[in-house]
Amino acid sequence: MSKILSVDVGGTKILYSVLDEKGNFLTEIKRLSTPKNINELINIFKNIINSYEREIDAIAFATAGAVNLSNTRVESSTPNMPKGYNSLDFTTLTNKPVYIENDANAAAWAEYKTGAAKGENNTITITLGTGVGGGFIVDGRLLRGKSGRAGETGHIKINGRNRRCNCGGKNCFESYASGTGLKITAQETAQFDEIFQSSIYKNKLPDDITTYDIIEGVKQKDSYSIKVFNIWKHDIITGLICLTNIFDPESIIISGGMGEFLNYEEIEKAVNSENVVSPVKIKPARSGNYSGMIGAALLAYEKLLYNKK
Amino acid sequence: MSKILSVDVGGTKILYSVLDEKGNFLTEIKRLSTPKNINELINIFKNIINSYEREIDAIAFATAGAVNLSNTRVESSTPNMPKGYNSLDFTTLTNKPVYIENDANAAAWAEYKTGAAKGENNTITITLGTGVGGGFIVDGRLLRGKSGRAGETGHIKINGRNRRCNCGGKNCFESYASGTGLKITAQETAQFDEIFQSSIYKNKLPDDITTYDIIEGVKQKDSYSIKVFNIWKHDIITGLICLTNIFDPESIIISGGMGEFLNYEEIEKAVNSENVVSPVKIKPARSGNYSGMIGAALLAYEKLLYNKK
Repeated sequence: MSKILSVDVGGTKILYSVLDEKGNFLTEIKRLSTPKNINELINIFKNIINSYEREIDAIAFATAGAVNLSNTRVESSTPNMPKGYNSLDFTTLTNKPVYIENDANAAAWAEYKTGAAKGENNTITITLGTGVGGGFIVDGRLLRGKSGRAGETGHIKINGRNRRCNCGGKNCFESYASGTGLKITAQETAQFDEIFQSSIYKNKLPDDITTYDIIEGVKQKDSYSIKVFNIWKHDIITGLICLTNIFDPESIIISGGMGEFLNYEEIEKAVNSENVVSPVKIKPARSGNYSGMIGAALLAYEKLLYNKK
Repeated sequence: MSKILSVDVGGTKILYSVLDEKGNFLTEIKRLSTPKNINELINIFKNIINSYEREIDAIAFATAGAVNLSNTRVESSTPNMPKGYNSLDFTTLTNKPVYIENDANAAAWAEYKTGAAKGENNTITITLGTGVGGGFIVDGRLLRGKSGRAGETGHIKINGRNRRCNCGGKNCFESYASGTGLKITAQETAQFDEIFQSSIYKNKLPDDITTYDIIEGVKQKDSYSIKVFNIWKHDIITGLICLTNIFDPESIIISGGMGEFLNYEEIEKAVNSENVVSPVKIKPARSGNYSGMIGAALLAYEKLLYNKK
């Protein structure tokens, strides 16, 4: 049995545990806050590694940001991470073999190897949360692109309404399909649609309406909330059709907090009624919040250890 | 030296010649009209094969329509082709090894192996003609998807204007970026924009304005034509940003008749000012009208002959 220390590094928290080559957790999952300072972060990494170094075969990191093609560094800017994070060469942290991967890619790998897309060689995992991310498996391999930055699902363009995205562009999928996107759609609809006058939220200022309000409003059968929710759902369907037509995948797996509000049967039917390739399955993710750790551990095993057995 | 008979089968014409394993033409390129009847088409194939069968090692077909994963049959409906085309097993035409590939995929392979994207392992070739097609090279391999239908570039969604596409969907890239798309944009602009009143085409009915009129109008500095052309260009740029953000490719190659009206430097600059991955090169195709034959021949060589040497 191989033992891989796997560390999931996000903008707010760090999760870590030791896993075997099948993605089973061998130790308790531990959690720390992500510090704002790069030296503190490096110290945390070193401390974590120190505690397990004697018993493990390799170290895996799932991290925010795009990872270089040799899987040793974060390449692209990651505004939520400490300054200097991009210049850290992860292989200098330890003498053990190290493998790092983007967290969305790691999550997609976890779904492909042990989760909802198990055995499906062409599959996409989309994360619908505060933002929108994605990882693509093409013929059983991770889509990385020329510089490791491929898979920016959040920044495909959809049939939009001239909405500005955080990336500086317009009409990006993320600006509509994320939780934040739902909120903006809610606020726009409150401002410009008469249906708001009969809503349970009519006494709120449009800018104060939240994602949660809409989810709650749908439960209470509020017409305004249902309208907003349906626009959001339609935006998601448009993005999924777009991805289906390019990749002809066996499945699209949805992870992230916003995914739990979707009716998968309905979404799958809508995507398949318009796609021009062949039917795709749309399924909820199964690996949960630990998919980054699982995927990174499985990738580290495959890339660093498997061939040496 | 290997000799591959390569046949490019389109909705209106059939092109064929014998090529070597480097994509060089060894015989005159011949051309026939595509018949409307499947039996006539099969007879044409058999006659072509008969004329060369003794001297060749394999037969390649580049064809309209999606091709199955074993590269023996056309899978998806191809309205321009004779009825029954989808049930033809190409391997029954001859005792020689046969390899068939979608024409856009073959064209992308030709650009990758011998054309504008030579040596670039992550590259996309887009055809801008009456419609929009595409072929994707990911880490040196053709993107095929679960059923061979991947790469339906024409049916990604862009930030559209609620335009209906031939596929039944809305706001597909093809409905804006194709030659037909340019014409529809011209007609819509003529109907709804005052700028048309001062155009050199003001005495035409909007429905009579053609793609050619706009290209000609731009040359004559007609403001209406320039406006229409710029909308079309912006639609193309939007689609290219979308593809760049998913694939992080080294290059996007543009082929097809409409490609010659683009300023590549300008398009590349616009795409790179908005993409969130890393800079991509946008270049005109180099393999021309014979890219289908070249790409199919190179693929047939690689898949059928190379390993047997």
